[in-house]
Amino acid sequence: MDEDSRYARWEQRTEIPLFLASLLFLAAYAARVLAETMPSVWKSLCGFTMLALWLVFAADYAVRRHLSGQRFTRFVRTHFLHTVVVLLPLLRPLRIVPLYDAIQNRQGEPRLSLHARVIAYASLSTLLLGFAGALAVYQRERGAPGATMKTFGDAIWWAAATLSTVGYGDITPVTPGGRAIAMCMMAGGLALLGAVTGSFSSWLLQIFSRESDRRPPEG
Amino acid sequence: MDEDSRYARWEQRTEIPLFLASLLFLAAYAARVLAETMPSVWKSLCGFTMLALWLVFAADYAVRRHLSGQRFTRFVRTHFLHTVVVLLPLLRPLRIVPLYDAIQNRQGEPRLSLHARVIAYASLSTLLLGFAGALAVYQRERGAPGATMKTFGDAIWWAAATLSTVGYGDITPVTPGGRAIAMCMMAGGLALLGAVTGSFSSWLLQIFSRESDRRPPEG
Amino acid sequence: MDEDSRYARWEQRTEIPLFLASLLFLAAYAARVLAETMPSVWKSLCGFTMLALWLVFAADYAVRRHLSGQRFTRFVRTHFLHTVVVLLPLLRPLRIVPLYDAIQNRQGEPRLSLHARVIAYASLSTLLLGFAGALAVYQRERGAPGATMKTFGDAIWWAAATLSTVGYGDITPVTPGGRAIAMCMMAGGLALLGAVTGSFSSWLLQIFSRESDRRPPEG
Amino acid sequence: MDEDSRYARWEQRTEIPLFLASLLFLAAYAARVLAETMPSVWKSLCGFTMLALWLVFAADYAVRRHLSGQRFTRFVRTHFLHTVVVLLPLLRPLRIVPLYDAIQNRQGEPRLSLHARVIAYASLSTLLLGFAGALAVYQRERGAPGATMKTFGDAIWWAAATLSTVGYGDITPVTPGGRAIAMCMMAGGLALLGAVTGSFSSWLLQIFSRESDRRPPEG
Repeated sequence: MDEDSRYARWEQRTEIPLFLASLLFLAAYAARVLAETMPSVWKSLCGFTMLALWLVFAADYAVRRHLSGQRFTRFVRTHFLHTVVVLLPLLRPLRIVPLYDAIQNRQGEPRLSLHARVIAYASLSTLLLGFAGALAVYQRERGAPGATMKTFGDAIWWAAATLSTVGYGDITPVTPGGRAIAMCMMAGGLALLGAVTGSFSSWLLQIFSRESDRRPPEG
Repeated sequence: MDEDSRYARWEQRTEIPLFLASLLFLAAYAARVLAETMPSVWKSLCGFTMLALWLVFAADYAVRRHLSGQRFTRFVRTHFLHTVVVLLPLLRPLRIVPLYDAIQNRQGEPRLSLHARVIAYASLSTLLLGFAGALAVYQRERGAPGATMKTFGDAIWWAAATLSTVGYGDITPVTPGGRAIAMCMMAGGLALLGAVTGSFSSWLLQIFSRESDRRPPEG
Repeated sequence: MDEDSRYARWEQRTEIPLFLASLLFLAAYAARVLAETMPSVWKSLCGFTMLALWLVFAADYAVRRHLSGQRFTRFVRTHFLHTVVVLLPLLRPLRIVPLYDAIQNRQGEPRLSLHARVIAYASLSTLLLGFAGALAVYQRERGAPGATMKTFGDAIWWAAATLSTVGYGDITPVTPGGRAIAMCMMAGGLALLGAVTGSFSSWLLQIFSRESDRRPPEG
Repeated sequence: MDEDSRYARWEQRTEIPLFLASLLFLAAYAARVLAETMPSVWKSLCGFTMLALWLVFAADYAVRRHLSGQRFTRFVRTHFLHTVVVLLPLLRPLRIVPLYDAIQNRQGEPRLSLHARVIAYASLSTLLLGFAGALAVYQRERGAPGATMKTFGDAIWWAAATLSTVGYGDITPVTPGGRAIAMCMMAGGLALLGAVTGSFSSWLLQIFSRESDRRPPEG
């Protein structure tokens, strides 16, 4: 059996369990951050679950690298999304878009169009980046002296204002850790804006060029 | 008579009354929110008017679905704007753009160009989203403890700063309901920005490709 | 002599004096707003100058309409920039871009490229909109109770933060008149953003398509 | 030896030393601004280093102008990036992108693609503009009465919020000098946004047109 088909078989067998594992990872992180009055044994359990899941993700990444038969530096470049979600496992549920695509493909259904895929990625990225970012910043801000972010609702409101680049400034992080995460979210917000406007722009151009083709020649 | 022409006839007969009904719906909502000293019998009247109008809109949607002869899930996808304005009747006046288009078409006049249609939708969406959003947020913020939004003028000013993604933050919603509506408005603001920049970009490209065609060949 | 050449001759003779008049208009407005301690006779003189200049602009617009031989509604659409600068004479110095273009054309020099023209319009519009908007808002805010905009420097700083959609909110207008002008500036800021990103995007595409043409065919 | 090859030889010999000198310039400026308790003899040394390095940059610019054999005004236009980094030496490390390109080219490796080059320039510009801008504004704000920017961490946080056009407004410059630099950074933030969205948009269009080509003709 050649390498390509072994890689494809590995992907086909692991993609659904790994996607469920990524949702569990997000849930464990949310529980650890939000349930303040949780007994410490449960907190430790959440922590161990996250560590175990991350080891599973890392092992999957190593197996894929081996099966692909590529050198490490090349694999990092050709499997960019895989690399990102190993380093930032909170973003792993983004893998649902290629997963959905692959299942459609296997059943002989048409794949999503380019624009639908860009819009699906952009919307999901926003929701995940906002939720995971709000959790991570809230964990650092909670109880800090002079913090304006007092509840998780405040954190969600702040994340929405940041990702849309509105930036009211009624609630802002004050700790160095919270600000560092916020800067990454700003970069994400810019990329998201670029994806939305770029996708809209190219969709308009495509419609326009179709309309030009449909018209009878003027000569 | 086949289904297509029956659908077209229904649309032709109902579109103007339904557009007037949508303006009445917006007026009734505005009256209910803004006229604080209105006797409660008038307030109830406004509420009943809104409910009755919404039932009319829902009935129109059901009739259209029946006349189109499509399954429900398919109809939702192919008549996306209709579905949105049944769920959010405050945005229903947006239907003026296809209405104007249809009337022009029937009279043998040329349809609006793609760019003119995008700009008309974007401008109208902004005005409607801003006005309806300011009303909805003002209803929730008025009288809330610690609210910075004290008059309807403040609400309009806040809505303009939000939709343009300027976001001064001198006035911000503080209630969970107001913030939830505000997040939807931020998403609308981003889409609007995408529409404006995308439309401008493709308009420039179109002008440029025309100029290229007009030039004599350099060889 | 036919109408086209009479229109062209009128334009050629009046464009430079009218451009100088538009700079005088802006200067008179700035003097009236900024020189608070100016004796009232000078203030009246500034006011009369502005009125007289505006009458000149309106007369020029009427003459152009007459010479074009078009109906009023059609002239408004085909001479959009002229109509805007008659209604908002503070923006009239924008006419320098077609003026420069016309002078280059007459001397047989090449016209500005499309991208250079868009960038020139966008930059000039920003500077003029910012300066005129800061003047107009400052006039309304100065001395208002609770105003955060205390000097003209504050007004310029606020205008820059608004047009770039940054929107710090450290200084914001509080009077209804100031806020109404600010909303127009926000719309201008969005259009400017669209012009800049659209122009950049189409410039990139143009470079890219040139690079594709230059490559040898792969077959 | 003709002028072209002498220019190329000069560039090839000086580009790496000049790049290292530009990093030294940035480091000297950062040391001068940040090390408040540094003895004044060290401060003077930093100042002299910066002056000496700037003279080197200016001399390099003059030599290049001479070797190119072009008139001054033409050289300014055709070597735009060189001119900018002579006037604003803090941005000089941007020259790493053409430097990397030239080294790749000399070794027979393929050049960066247009999109990769735009993204590399945009990311590097953001980091440099943010770091240099934060230094320059912090120097003016430190110790000013009523300043909200109290540490260099605050300055970095403010620069990130400005370049991404989020603009919280929790920290804003209050001195005229700081505000003037901030306005230049806002213009840079807009251009950056245009580069990111424009690049993304044209990348999408390119992918789309490739997919269209790959499909079999429908007829």
